[in-house]
Amino acid sequence: MIKTRLTDQFELDYPIVCAPMALVTGGKLAGAVSEAGGLGILGGGYAGMLGGEPDLDEEYRNAGNQRIGIGVITWAAEQNPDVVDWAIALKPRCLFLSFGDPAPFALLARDAGVPVFCQVQTLDHARAALDAGAGVIVAQGSEAGGHGAKRSTLPFVPEVADLLANRAPDVLLLAAGGIADGRGLAASLMLGADGVLVGSRFWASKEALTPQPAIDRAIESDGDGTVRTIAADQLRGLAWPDDYSFRMLKNRMTDDWAGREAAARENFGSMKDEYDEARRTGDLDIVATVVGEATGLIHNRPAASEIMQSMANEAEALLANGNKMVGTG
Amino acid sequence: MIKTRLTDQFELDYPIVCAPMALVTGGKLAGAVSEAGGLGILGGGYAGMLGGEPDLDEEYRNAGNQRIGIGVITWAAEQNPDVVDWAIALKPRCLFLSFGDPAPFALLARDAGVPVFCQVQTLDHARAALDAGAGVIVAQGSEAGGHGAKRSTLPFVPEVADLLANRAPDVLLLAAGGIADGRGLAASLMLGADGVLVGSRFWASKEALTPQPAIDRAIESDGDGTVRTIAADQLRGLAWPDDYSFRMLKNRMTDDWAGREAAARENFGSMKDEYDEARRTGDLDIVATVVGEATGLIHNRPAASEIMQSMANEAEALLANGNKMVGTG
Repeated sequence: MIKTRLTDQFELDYPIVCAPMALVTGGKLAGAVSEAGGLGILGGGYAGMLGGEPDLDEEYRNAGNQRIGIGVITWAAEQNPDVVDWAIALKPRCLFLSFGDPAPFALLARDAGVPVFCQVQTLDHARAALDAGAGVIVAQGSEAGGHGAKRSTLPFVPEVADLLANRAPDVLLLAAGGIADGRGLAASLMLGADGVLVGSRFWASKEALTPQPAIDRAIESDGDGTVRTIAADQLRGLAWPDDYSFRMLKNRMTDDWAGREAAARENFGSMKDEYDEARRTGDLDIVATVVGEATGLIHNRPAASEIMQSMANEAEALLANGNKMVGTG
Repeated sequence: MIKTRLTDQFELDYPIVCAPMALVTGGKLAGAVSEAGGLGILGGGYAGMLGGEPDLDEEYRNAGNQRIGIGVITWAAEQNPDVVDWAIALKPRCLFLSFGDPAPFALLARDAGVPVFCQVQTLDHARAALDAGAGVIVAQGSEAGGHGAKRSTLPFVPEVADLLANRAPDVLLLAAGGIADGRGLAASLMLGADGVLVGSRFWASKEALTPQPAIDRAIESDGDGTVRTIAADQLRGLAWPDDYSFRMLKNRMTDDWAGREAAARENFGSMKDEYDEARRTGDLDIVATVVGEATGLIHNRPAASEIMQSMANEAEALLANGNKMVGTG
């Protein structure tokens, strides 16, 4: 066991939270992480906007009797607020909000007694999350897979920790972005986090909804093999707010477009049909393999429980032995 | 004291190395860091190419009787290799190479018995550094101030650690980028580093050659206030290799140009006179304030010895108490 304020407050064995990845974190994965002593959060994703998304009712049931949270892409849920009402009515372990103004949904959740997790990418986001009454702030670095922004986890987490210490010392802090093993977990705790949010490592777990060919590509790639760009969203016509970009494995599409952000904006939606077709056929030269820099630390597709145990064992050993580095002067 | 393979091998009290920042790390700063139990490295910078650089002979003498290393920008030193001959003849504590092919200079240093530190920004760089016989690899994340590339420190360091474990287990590893306090130091040790390279925090030390108005701006800024771009180098006509960009505080120049990388390349050298004049007059709306994301963790300009002591004390406390987080299941 690793004890932090997060494990105390949410009655966990390990301060490890599975990110609510759209199209990836279904109920089986979320439930498996909770069962293994962490906290799983179902990916509510685009709230139906994207098409071809998993049935959320069914996914929630797939967690069985495990208590899990539910996460949504905030700006997408604004266009279908029913999904938030649905989520809150289930009294999930938490409502996880990212990418948009958390205030209205956070208020609904708090009124219903559901803890609010807000993922933030800037200090202004963090302040807005505090104003919205978040109980847990997730400080996400740019190295994360999928959507995110520009700060890096290592300096961002302690800066948010300082903000919380000054303004809201009872609010908990998770580190997110680049954390895939016990080293990343132990490091995050040293930075002042109460726990970690893990995406990519669980993206490549047995229970994830991720197609095997995508995982094969990620296993083959090292951490230099990803790129952060707005091209994929713009070209397929997803109206993501300007602040956010998308980290994925480099492929033919990003070779053509990454770094040409203005041109991608001008071609908004121009590849929508091609992209949808590529999703259907699994053409990973076009469709995104959505993994972060941590892909360089991922070499297999184990069960979520094995990932949990391996991260925990490695972090416990590092934390237990830290004092051996400290000598007397 | 904090004991690692780095402190053993270089006879240090703390695994803290001061980055050889061009125009910033003079002999006084490098000497003060060594005197305080770390390792200071004089910034040899552009080897004279830039103009207005500190006199390196004088700076080396300014370290007094402290043993320091010397660092150069590798691609710049290729155009004035005398600076490397000069450095090696002094038998410095190390030769620190970054931004270019390390092999030729590393060979000269090793022949003279001078330890070689290679700073790397990708896994290919790390492999090249091993081929060149580096004794210490410095894995630098994108959050660093000044020149760098795209990986983030938190996932990059453990991936390089795995490479070393497989290929060269006796080669030491430093983490660089975003590390400005004891939290960053303790986290880096958890990630598998033998120590840390610290730039921004020492950039804002009493002994640094940094002009006070730049430090005032950095203290005022939070960590969201920096940007990584090639604009400053391109516009002032510095022919940096394509792989590298530059992190600095946002200012009027980057508001105009950051994100317009192709346009900046097309305007190579167009602001050279204006930039040189701004350096002379200290116009920080044009000239770069060269600090990393860690600026959000920097609130004062203390002596280097105070920085060392504060980082060390905080890291020692974190390392010593890590075992309290580990419970029995």
